[in-house]
Amino acid sequence: MQSYQQMSAEELLEVKEGLEKEYAKFKGMGLSLNMARGKPSTEQLDISMPMLEIFHSGSDLMTEAGEDCRNYGLLDGLPEAKKLIADMIDTKPENVIVYGNSSLSIMYDTISRSYTHGVMGNTPWCKLDKVKFLCPVPGYDRHFSITEFFGIEMINVPMTEDGPDMDLVEKLVSEDESIKGIWCVPKYSNPQGIVYSDETVRRFANLKPAAKDFRIYWDNAYAVHHLYEDDQAEILDIISECEKAGNPDLVYEFCSTSKISFSGAGVGALASSKANLEEIKKQLSVQTIGHDKINQLRHVHYFKDINGIRAHMEKQSAAIRPKFELVLKMFDEELKGLDIGNWLSPKGGYFITFEALEGCAKNIVSKAKEAGVTLTSAGAPYPYGKDPMDSVIRIAPTFPTLEELEKATEIFIICVKLASVEKLLADKK
Amino acid sequence: MQSYQQMSAEELLEVKEGLEKEYAKFKGMGLSLNMARGKPSTEQLDISMPMLEIFHSGSDLMTEAGEDCRNYGLLDGLPEAKKLIADMIDTKPENVIVYGNSSLSIMYDTISRSYTHGVMGNTPWCKLDKVKFLCPVPGYDRHFSITEFFGIEMINVPMTEDGPDMDLVEKLVSEDESIKGIWCVPKYSNPQGIVYSDETVRRFANLKPAAKDFRIYWDNAYAVHHLYEDDQAEILDIISECEKAGNPDLVYEFCSTSKISFSGAGVGALASSKANLEEIKKQLSVQTIGHDKINQLRHVHYFKDINGIRAHMEKQSAAIRPKFELVLKMFDEELKGLDIGNWLSPKGGYFITFEALEGCAKNIVSKAKEAGVTLTSAGAPYPYGKDPMDSVIRIAPTFPTLEELEKATEIFIICVKLASVEKLLADKK
Repeated sequence: MQSYQQMSAEELLEVKEGLEKEYAKFKGMGLSLNMARGKPSTEQLDISMPMLEIFHSGSDLMTEAGEDCRNYGLLDGLPEAKKLIADMIDTKPENVIVYGNSSLSIMYDTISRSYTHGVMGNTPWCKLDKVKFLCPVPGYDRHFSITEFFGIEMINVPMTEDGPDMDLVEKLVSEDESIKGIWCVPKYSNPQGIVYSDETVRRFANLKPAAKDFRIYWDNAYAVHHLYEDDQAEILDIISECEKAGNPDLVYEFCSTSKISFSGAGVGALASSKANLEEIKKQLSVQTIGHDKINQLRHVHYFKDINGIRAHMEKQSAAIRPKFELVLKMFDEELKGLDIGNWLSPKGGYFITFEALEGCAKNIVSKAKEAGVTLTSAGAPYPYGKDPMDSVIRIAPTFPTLEELEKATEIFIICVKLASVEKLLADKK
Repeated sequence: MQSYQQMSAEELLEVKEGLEKEYAKFKGMGLSLNMARGKPSTEQLDISMPMLEIFHSGSDLMTEAGEDCRNYGLLDGLPEAKKLIADMIDTKPENVIVYGNSSLSIMYDTISRSYTHGVMGNTPWCKLDKVKFLCPVPGYDRHFSITEFFGIEMINVPMTEDGPDMDLVEKLVSEDESIKGIWCVPKYSNPQGIVYSDETVRRFANLKPAAKDFRIYWDNAYAVHHLYEDDQAEILDIISECEKAGNPDLVYEFCSTSKISFSGAGVGALASSKANLEEIKKQLSVQTIGHDKINQLRHVHYFKDINGIRAHMEKQSAAIRPKFELVLKMFDEELKGLDIGNWLSPKGGYFITFEALEGCAKNIVSKAKEAGVTLTSAGAPYPYGKDPMDSVIRIAPTFPTLEELEKATEIFIICVKLASVEKLLADKK
């Protein structure tokens, strides 16, 4: 295909005319398609349904240690749930607290506690004039919403194919005491699907932050969310790397089964050092008597162990993989060689990131919307919703059916082409 | 029985000798009994077991409006769960947000949000020099732990048989702008089982606080937790009373099914005015994508409606009632006329409060402990764990079996007698 970049104004105008006709056709269809949020499809949710009949009225809901999961108690979670979660993220059960259904709320709580009570005896952030966070970009919008809600200044750090730009991270955290944290999705990152290299993880573990209360917020959301059975990413265990580096308390790790069992009814967890966990449990004991242990036990009885989770995730990836492959194949067929955008082919996670020509993302999202395709807002993967290049679009292919996804991607591609032609024509003026 | 108060030193010494022999006998038994926490018994938890088989792998988990409860979404809860909760606490579904398994964590969040972000545009509490709360005493220790954790100064307000001393409440809140809230358990109060009178509720609704961000923290924990089918307390709906009084935003109401379905796996909720809910939902949208909707739907399908809850609670009270009656009967038989303590006969809730002679509570709890009976710490029902009279002991009769409870109460009575004799003898010196 001929690169749009090398076309004359006349050629571009001709292309534009054809695209506008196609676009008008789709607009007339009154479609309502959604590629906005990383939601599992009905087919994926159906995979977990047998979990709901794990218990019946005669079930024994005692833990192995003889605690009744139906009653109050066990603030930090069932021992057997800790084991299951620990195996999922390659850490030890004693590093884990198992919570309720949402890892996002654990992250919120972690920031909130630091804000109200400080981290390990350091000044509570609410008493400081300025608190800053590093935000590898593009990243997860809901992370940025939490730090924004607490008035924390967010600083963009570019992503590379090995993870965040560590030269910049090292420089910033060592120089600026007001930098208290960094948001990371180390495996199949949201939205790019990037896997942090071993070197990146080790450099994180060896950070020398100016702030004593600096922590790495390690959202290991996609630990077992591989697309390919024979090509699975592995990352180093950040907790043991931090121990080795003599920085045992440097990291809070988060994960959940939201995209393993049920999005609304999974189990979330936090993993960290003994000292961090002890501090967190003090707050937790004020906040609640305990989380939903019946649901924790339901997960334990259903999955049994990490092999159960792995087998289950193969079913999940079988449902998702064709969707990723469809979108990527259509991109290859329709956009390759046009020089109007780039994309990565993730090996796991929930998203495909499309990087459009500078200044085109908002236009593409808005054009798609008009034609009935909802995309994540342009800018969403950046702090304050501001993509400095107006270029990145996060595509979530999991929720629609294959047919819907094909239609939505077709429209997306037309919108990309049209917005790019418009931009290139404007540049020529 | 002869009043201990009227005994001579010689008579008291004789009584003491007999009690010490009995006490020594129990101490030698190596018992381990617990009347400390308001936990349901195994028998009570068994009542709810059929709830666990409400769903199976073929179940339809759609809401009436067609939303899939297994997926993300519905931040403020299922409409049908709102209806169920609203009927339970006599309010309207639109006043309700349904959360996860713990109403305590909703209260914690409410305080924490006020601390970090303020209430409706007022200064966040973390930016104020002094924040105070009124605490009707005796009250619920976990309430006091939350306010203590946030460094909020707690002021005792005596309870009367109609609820908190409203003269004092009205005076304090109208005079002191730093008073931002009051903890209330309006129905079958923890620990006394007192029911707020209509006049008390109306006076609450008509408060004229100096602080614009003053709120009543109305923990309606025992809304349907009656002991007697034919003698059920009713309280006025505080939310509509506040509306009538022109103070629609004055109250946050909390409740849960923790002592209806399962203590660890129930559903918690908050009810308030439209304006309060809108502010809360803003925070909630940052904190989580949604709570466990499968568990909400499980409760809806199991109970169906308020009549289902009522029928279920009759089974619960049938399991609990004999325990309350046993303790009260033993108190009547063994302590009446001795002038060494008072107690109320609650018609619902989870506790019996024993008011010992001044200065005896710690001694009684410690003596009981030595004989193998764990009681709630003396002082626990007071802010900072300090009972100014060292007199109140909270008894939780639900968890032990009847046999265990009888033994524990027998020992408790001996400890009360012994501690009282010791005190009266010391007074005579």
